[in-house]
Amino acid sequence: MSYEAKLQQLGIELPAPPKPVATYIPAVQAGELLFLSGVIPLRDGKLAVEGKLGKDLTIEQGYEAARIALLNALAVIHQELGTLDRVRRIVRLVGHVASAAGFVQQPAVINGASDLLVRVFEEAGRHARVAVGAAELPLNAPVELELIVHISG
Amino acid sequence: MSYEAKLQQLGIELPAPPKPVATYIPAVQAGELLFLSGVIPLRDGKLAVEGKLGKDLTIEQGYEAARIALLNALAVIHQELGTLDRVRRIVRLVGHVASAAGFVQQPAVINGASDLLVRVFEEAGRHARVAVGAAELPLNAPVELELIVHISG
Amino acid sequence: MSYEAKLQQLGIELPAPPKPVATYIPAVQAGELLFLSGVIPLRDGKLAVEGKLGKDLTIEQGYEAARIALLNALAVIHQELGTLDRVRRIVRLVGHVASAAGFVQQPAVINGASDLLVRVFEEAGRHARVAVGAAELPLNAPVELELIVHISG
Repeated sequence: MSYEAKLQQLGIELPAPPKPVATYIPAVQAGELLFLSGVIPLRDGKLAVEGKLGKDLTIEQGYEAARIALLNALAVIHQELGTLDRVRRIVRLVGHVASAAGFVQQPAVINGASDLLVRVFEEAGRHARVAVGAAELPLNAPVELELIVHISG
Repeated sequence: MSYEAKLQQLGIELPAPPKPVATYIPAVQAGELLFLSGVIPLRDGKLAVEGKLGKDLTIEQGYEAARIALLNALAVIHQELGTLDRVRRIVRLVGHVASAAGFVQQPAVINGASDLLVRVFEEAGRHARVAVGAAELPLNAPVELELIVHISG
Repeated sequence: MSYEAKLQQLGIELPAPPKPVATYIPAVQAGELLFLSGVIPLRDGKLAVEGKLGKDLTIEQGYEAARIALLNALAVIHQELGTLDRVRRIVRLVGHVASAAGFVQQPAVINGASDLLVRVFEEAGRHARVAVGAAELPLNAPVELELIVHISG
């Protein structure tokens, strides 16, 4: 089954990809690697979830924020490649989690993105991952994701 | 116009590239990608701007710090490649901004680097970008930048 | 001398590689680059060093934590490639250091990883590096390392 069909089967509708807001752009391809700009949990141009883990949000809310941020990443990949079916492998995900003092469960939050990657891309979605706690994130986002994707020519 | 000529036209003089201070080096090439070590706003071996955003510095000062850090990155690229004209594309910039509690305008700070990249490299300078808030940065730097550059052989 | 022999000569025994704990995996190869998941100072499945720099730990303890985290990275590389001798170059190391307010000596901590890379891989171990201060890290780890390795086919 194609990844596009898989998305549909899962009932996932991609959001409009985030618009470039400055002199940077949503993604750059170098050779067979696609490097994405950081994505945050935007929905209709606004943060769907806001605040810090360990203070404002539960782990479940953080997990959902990571899932929504990942949908934005998928929308960027779709926009750049024309179709998700040109994804050969999700290479690496770095997940930054806005963390209040003492919050050390960043991995449980970033699972919201990792789980969705595997649901959509199956084996090709299994990625290397880094989860870290940020002091603050843009617009008070709880989560920001960096993705590198291996694509076919 | 070559990027070297563009630099001159913009009246930009590159600083001496930062010296390796430990067992790491300023940049490593792998295939057609050049990975740079983190750069901070050094000038003549000292921080030109110091402190945290949201506490010690205005956004304008942070923007200027990002611009100076980027000059250090350009100096490293020039040193590694012999000339900026071997730059094929700026691939990705990660900008870490030392952020006091509640400071969430990291993108406005990192624009100091992004804007200069586009001024020098034009279309080839449009990059993927990630802006995050760090708890602390080396030497009390306000900004640290990571760059990946696609180069021609 | 092969890197495997070098390890032995240095009296270094690799730990069991960290087990995948979620939907991500220890490393992904894309072309000639190997991207590792974040590693923390685990020993026998537990953190060998815990806490923040600038509060709970001295720089020497942080240095040792970075060294242990790097051993975990070497174990992953060994597991992925079958032998360290397929390492062509250590490309880039990003070191996240859990930092209490005012701690700005992240580079001195990450030297624990950098020094070991050069001891094992000599010239091929000289890498690009980024050291930043994280607000918090998973499980209260003092250090988390991201590695990219250039490998031979």
